[in-house]
Amino acid sequence: MAIVHVNTKCDIPSGFRWGTAKAAIKRAGREDIGLLVADNPCSAAAVFTRNTFCAAPVRFSRGVLSRSGGKLLGAVVNSGCANAATGARGMDDAATMARLAETALCRGPAESEPQFLVCSTGVIGVHLPMDKIQTGIETAARELDATADAFNAFARSILTTDTVAKIASARIDCGNKTARILGCAKGAGMIYPRMATLLAFITTDAEVEPDLLKECFARTVEHSLNCLTVDGDTSTNDTAILLASGASELKIDPASAELVQFEKALLDVMQSLTKQLARDGEGASKLVEIEVQRAANFESARKIGFAIANSNLVKTAIYGKDANWGRIICAVGNSGEMVDPATVRVSLGPQVLFEAGAPVPMDEQAALEALSQDCVRIEVDLGVGQSAATVWTCDLTEGYIKINGAYRT
Amino acid sequence: MAIVHVNTKCDIPSGFRWGTAKAAIKRAGREDIGLLVADNPCSAAAVFTRNTFCAAPVRFSRGVLSRSGGKLLGAVVNSGCANAATGARGMDDAATMARLAETALCRGPAESEPQFLVCSTGVIGVHLPMDKIQTGIETAARELDATADAFNAFARSILTTDTVAKIASARIDCGNKTARILGCAKGAGMIYPRMATLLAFITTDAEVEPDLLKECFARTVEHSLNCLTVDGDTSTNDTAILLASGASELKIDPASAELVQFEKALLDVMQSLTKQLARDGEGASKLVEIEVQRAANFESARKIGFAIANSNLVKTAIYGKDANWGRIICAVGNSGEMVDPATVRVSLGPQVLFEAGAPVPMDEQAALEALSQDCVRIEVDLGVGQSAATVWTCDLTEGYIKINGAYRT
Repeated sequence: MAIVHVNTKCDIPSGFRWGTAKAAIKRAGREDIGLLVADNPCSAAAVFTRNTFCAAPVRFSRGVLSRSGGKLLGAVVNSGCANAATGARGMDDAATMARLAETALCRGPAESEPQFLVCSTGVIGVHLPMDKIQTGIETAARELDATADAFNAFARSILTTDTVAKIASARIDCGNKTARILGCAKGAGMIYPRMATLLAFITTDAEVEPDLLKECFARTVEHSLNCLTVDGDTSTNDTAILLASGASELKIDPASAELVQFEKALLDVMQSLTKQLARDGEGASKLVEIEVQRAANFESARKIGFAIANSNLVKTAIYGKDANWGRIICAVGNSGEMVDPATVRVSLGPQVLFEAGAPVPMDEQAALEALSQDCVRIEVDLGVGQSAATVWTCDLTEGYIKINGAYRT
Repeated sequence: MAIVHVNTKCDIPSGFRWGTAKAAIKRAGREDIGLLVADNPCSAAAVFTRNTFCAAPVRFSRGVLSRSGGKLLGAVVNSGCANAATGARGMDDAATMARLAETALCRGPAESEPQFLVCSTGVIGVHLPMDKIQTGIETAARELDATADAFNAFARSILTTDTVAKIASARIDCGNKTARILGCAKGAGMIYPRMATLLAFITTDAEVEPDLLKECFARTVEHSLNCLTVDGDTSTNDTAILLASGASELKIDPASAELVQFEKALLDVMQSLTKQLARDGEGASKLVEIEVQRAANFESARKIGFAIANSNLVKTAIYGKDANWGRIICAVGNSGEMVDPATVRVSLGPQVLFEAGAPVPMDEQAALEALSQDCVRIEVDLGVGQSAATVWTCDLTEGYIKINGAYRT
């Protein structure tokens, strides 16, 4: 049994097709409608934002999933408009998107339960342009294909302020059977998926029962997308979806060696997407990886990691290549977790900066080198327990201000 | 009985003197040592940061206050170096600052309990230059004076990245007696005094017993400095000090009409300082005032206010004069408080933007006008209870990034 991890290639799992359209919901000339369609109803798991003002598509999709028995046909997505804070009309529009997808694909009579999840991303507080949405879904349905090109176009169709598509894949070989996991995600701002995440679509042709898929997905999300922050703002529309077609006939049973491998491969894919998302955070010039070690438990470690990752002062210091580690200490002290300064050690790259309650003389040149990497690594050793967590973020630059000072207009 | 509120004039309370020195701890040519000295031991109250990694002067001052019986002689302050994360040597240095002040003022033998609080503000993780500190304190002690010039110089001596000094005063007339309250504060970044605050020094010549002064100060801090955020980072060094000399002979008794007036005047001074701090937040182009109304209780209202005030997306939208109210809604939904979108109303200036779960058609011109004010006002009416809270912050601009990308160096 072996996992082959591939980041740059699309290793297409069997049993799925993707279609897109340029419906001029975003600015003209870019894909903004995406369809992900399984050949047959397949095991589905999803996690959603816990923002109280969650968007209509999130409320609609939660209902679809809960009534589905864990079997779904796919998802329909638009970018450019979030359909959030849009009242009753927004709920109608989300339901219409699902029905339009099913009609365009000649799936199921109109009166049956919808089998498609709906995702929207973009500006909040604006109604969907339903004429464009309809034309777009009909076009995307005609374009459905199981090729890398079709998948890549789908990965582009969900983007908003992202500068690149985020794609990751893995392969599990087991005896004479091979299963694939392929995911894409979007999100560059309003990213702090404490409970769920941005938009992410993962497909696999492994064969997994819905309940097991749900457990497995929840665990991996907790250690990947839920360890990510760009700006501390949890979106109204966060949704991550995992569909398993079973087409590879590689069966993943509970408590099996295959499950361990499958979950490891899924985590690899999810963490790769998470890092790509952080690296492409709005205005980001760097990926920042913060590992909190020897904490009392994972939750505590992650909370401290997020206190550092959400500090504008830490993020601007990293941008300015300034080894101002006092800001890291300050953020740890603000985390709300009980921490004893006397046992804490803070490192930047390979260099220890703070230990036993006092500064360690710093090699400014080595610090500058650590801060000049594309991925800046901060380690905080709490010295109290056995648990660790890694959190990913990016630096904070003038680019973030420019993008968000004029995003809507 | 009447309160006269004065913002721009220094109305000097009797019984205090201020002295400063330019000790080259900050860049040369600026005051960076400040002494606040009462003529006689006077009632004292103080609140401090709850950052776990609080600085040596905070730990030292907490001890001084708790052993003082509520009577103190004043405070000694330096800017340019926070004496935070400096281990045992940092504690020694803080104690030395207090002793140097007492020696320079010929107060008390060296072996007695210190009667001065110590405050430091500036870079974290660097030891104090004690030779400069000593020279500075000796100079400041020679410069002590009870004039507006001396107070203004003290207000400047505590600044770091602040662009202006923050000063507020009030006067209480009662029969033939007049008491004055005069305060100054500093702080432009690392400002989110959830439990205490930045640096603030308030003096009054009203006559108030220490216990009553403490209660009164705690209540007013809760509705002023503790309703402020610039960037969501609580500093290691936050300290606010109130000294009452009693020199006016205007006695403030518990449960008296005078207490009501005194507390109102104190709150006016504290809220004025709070707004000045927000307006001068690092890189700020605007003051932002967020009032959350009809909440279940004050804590809930303030928590929602802070969720909005700490959102980089809201702050950049205000900077960009973009009435992107969806970001306000999103922040409310992230506050952790249970909120029903159906009862929430969001207004920008006089204009309602969101009501009954759906957008209200927006007059873009009126919105632009509201966003062009020096103080942008956001109202969130939760429609559930009787409590309200106002939170103050500023917008987020490229200036913040520039300042904090290169502060230490």
